[in-house]
Amino acid sequence: MSSNAFFPDFSRRTLLSALAVLPVLPQIFSAAAAQTAAAADPLPSWNDGASKQSIINFVTAVTREGSPDFVPAPQRIATFDNDGTLWSEHPMYVQLAFALDRVKAMAPLHPEWKSKQPFKAVLDGDMKSLAKSGERGLAELIMVTHAGMTSDEFAKIVTDWLATARHPRFKRPYTEVVYQPMLEVLAYLRANGFKTYIVSGGGIEFMRPWSERVYGVPPEQVVGSSIKTRFEMRQGRPELFRLPEVNFIDDKAGKPVGINEFIGRRPIAAFGNSDGDLQMLQWTTMSGGMRLGLIVHHTDAEREYAYDRDTEFGKLDKALDAAAINKWTLADMKKDWKVIFPPGQ
Amino acid sequence: MSSNAFFPDFSRRTLLSALAVLPVLPQIFSAAAAQTAAAADPLPSWNDGASKQSIINFVTAVTREGSPDFVPAPQRIATFDNDGTLWSEHPMYVQLAFALDRVKAMAPLHPEWKSKQPFKAVLDGDMKSLAKSGERGLAELIMVTHAGMTSDEFAKIVTDWLATARHPRFKRPYTEVVYQPMLEVLAYLRANGFKTYIVSGGGIEFMRPWSERVYGVPPEQVVGSSIKTRFEMRQGRPELFRLPEVNFIDDKAGKPVGINEFIGRRPIAAFGNSDGDLQMLQWTTMSGGMRLGLIVHHTDAEREYAYDRDTEFGKLDKALDAAAINKWTLADMKKDWKVIFPPGQ
Repeated sequence: MSSNAFFPDFSRRTLLSALAVLPVLPQIFSAAAAQTAAAADPLPSWNDGASKQSIINFVTAVTREGSPDFVPAPQRIATFDNDGTLWSEHPMYVQLAFALDRVKAMAPLHPEWKSKQPFKAVLDGDMKSLAKSGERGLAELIMVTHAGMTSDEFAKIVTDWLATARHPRFKRPYTEVVYQPMLEVLAYLRANGFKTYIVSGGGIEFMRPWSERVYGVPPEQVVGSSIKTRFEMRQGRPELFRLPEVNFIDDKAGKPVGINEFIGRRPIAAFGNSDGDLQMLQWTTMSGGMRLGLIVHHTDAEREYAYDRDTEFGKLDKALDAAAINKWTLADMKKDWKVIFPPGQ
Repeated sequence: MSSNAFFPDFSRRTLLSALAVLPVLPQIFSAAAAQTAAAADPLPSWNDGASKQSIINFVTAVTREGSPDFVPAPQRIATFDNDGTLWSEHPMYVQLAFALDRVKAMAPLHPEWKSKQPFKAVLDGDMKSLAKSGERGLAELIMVTHAGMTSDEFAKIVTDWLATARHPRFKRPYTEVVYQPMLEVLAYLRANGFKTYIVSGGGIEFMRPWSERVYGVPPEQVVGSSIKTRFEMRQGRPELFRLPEVNFIDDKAGKPVGINEFIGRRPIAAFGNSDGDLQMLQWTTMSGGMRLGLIVHHTDAEREYAYDRDTEFGKLDKALDAAAINKWTLADMKKDWKVIFPPGQ
């Protein structure tokens, strides 16, 4: 993440200070620069081939005035799954790693956890017993680590954790274990007038504190799962408290529902990697007109991971069958991607 | 609504076709035009006075680089209530007028309604009996008229209704019974790098079909109340069905909750007109830094309506007390506004 290409906001403000021009001018410069780069090669980390070409063909067609496939800029909505599509989801969801670390950090205040499941399993590093606690145990872990504070406090906890946590295999901050080729797709789409959204099963308030810095996607363009919150005046101050109660699960058939509720427009491009994204890709691509559906296929055990039909999470089975039927693009990690992660700092 | 100032998307596309330029260029032209207009008088329908000045002072302070009150553009979020703040809510909420008209339109398919409350009351025009049916009766009317179709179908029903429905007193389409001075505030804020949102107790899918055309607020910047939807593949087509079940009520303490969920940023300016907006204004203004809270005070029975503490809906009581304590701006319709509605077509 050494390049400023993924910090459009930062570069805009730098320009603004330097030039003391109209607030809109920096957008012109950055868009123009992006277009120049795009003319060279908008997706330099992608090997030439059918997958790369399908992305470029799509963007070219929907942005060419007078083309039968032209789509006006306000309708250029692209939605991206996060876990396994923009960043690595193995060996476990990053948000689960966060929850486990939080249990350990909170343990001194909860001596009873030493003998109470599923907390004992977490503190003992006993993944087998943790798995036995099932969905109910997992929900308990999530609630105890994600609720009971204000939204502002939670954002700080997430930010602080990401600053020091490291991916167990790649030894880098999780926010650097993101896919360089997909960062290029995000930037390429935005340079062509698209609004890029994250639509993830992950927690909306877990992603928003860093989505703009890492993906160039501002908080208001992040859709995700959520717990309920309550507004309250406390000691004369307005606060939003996070409650241990599910509000919305933004996964599978929930993704089109979330897209409709939060965005209110139907996307024309959608990117996923698992059966959790099937309905989002159906909703996006089966609506007439030129559309792009793309599935990141994890085929590279050497540089990342290889999994599809037989994995526990991030399972790609029905969506793999649907990809063939609906002519969605398969991005074969091993074959299509020159690099997986951004260069180190 | 004869001016293109309130149709930024339309004017952008016209320019685009005419000039065949980069997709970003029209933004420059319209922003530059807006800034020129702003330099002359950004709020020409406002009489000079403390209310108008407080809006201009706020915008000037938060947009001046180097000022202690400067707020970077991405954080310039402004939220607007709709009913009574952007368009007239008397003699009844527009969405209620819609529901009553829908009952009449649907009645031939429901002969049983002739003898069944609250439908009978609607068909007989018997508002007294309708009122007697209370919240439960109202909820029944809303569900039967707002659920049972796809989201796309509902958008078309709303659009078709607005094309022919007229405000009973002003004899104009409801989308023209909007407040010209507030349209100017919306445009003025956007010309200064603000993102303008609607945050309304009204139905989110009732507002989205026309919010961009009327207010320049795109669907993805509309937050509102909603019913649940279900995604389903039906005869090989992906569809979103509207269900007769409440999902979220975006009113009172629900407004900060909705703002946090949909936008994920705290606004720095908020505009309302009733106790339903109290918490939104608290959440916005009580957060340190220069903030703007504004309440539209309906004081003009001659040109619109006059109501505050003793009204049935749009009640302004606690929020009026809070305005004095928190130094929120009161926009006195009679005193502060030169005109109420846009010039006729």
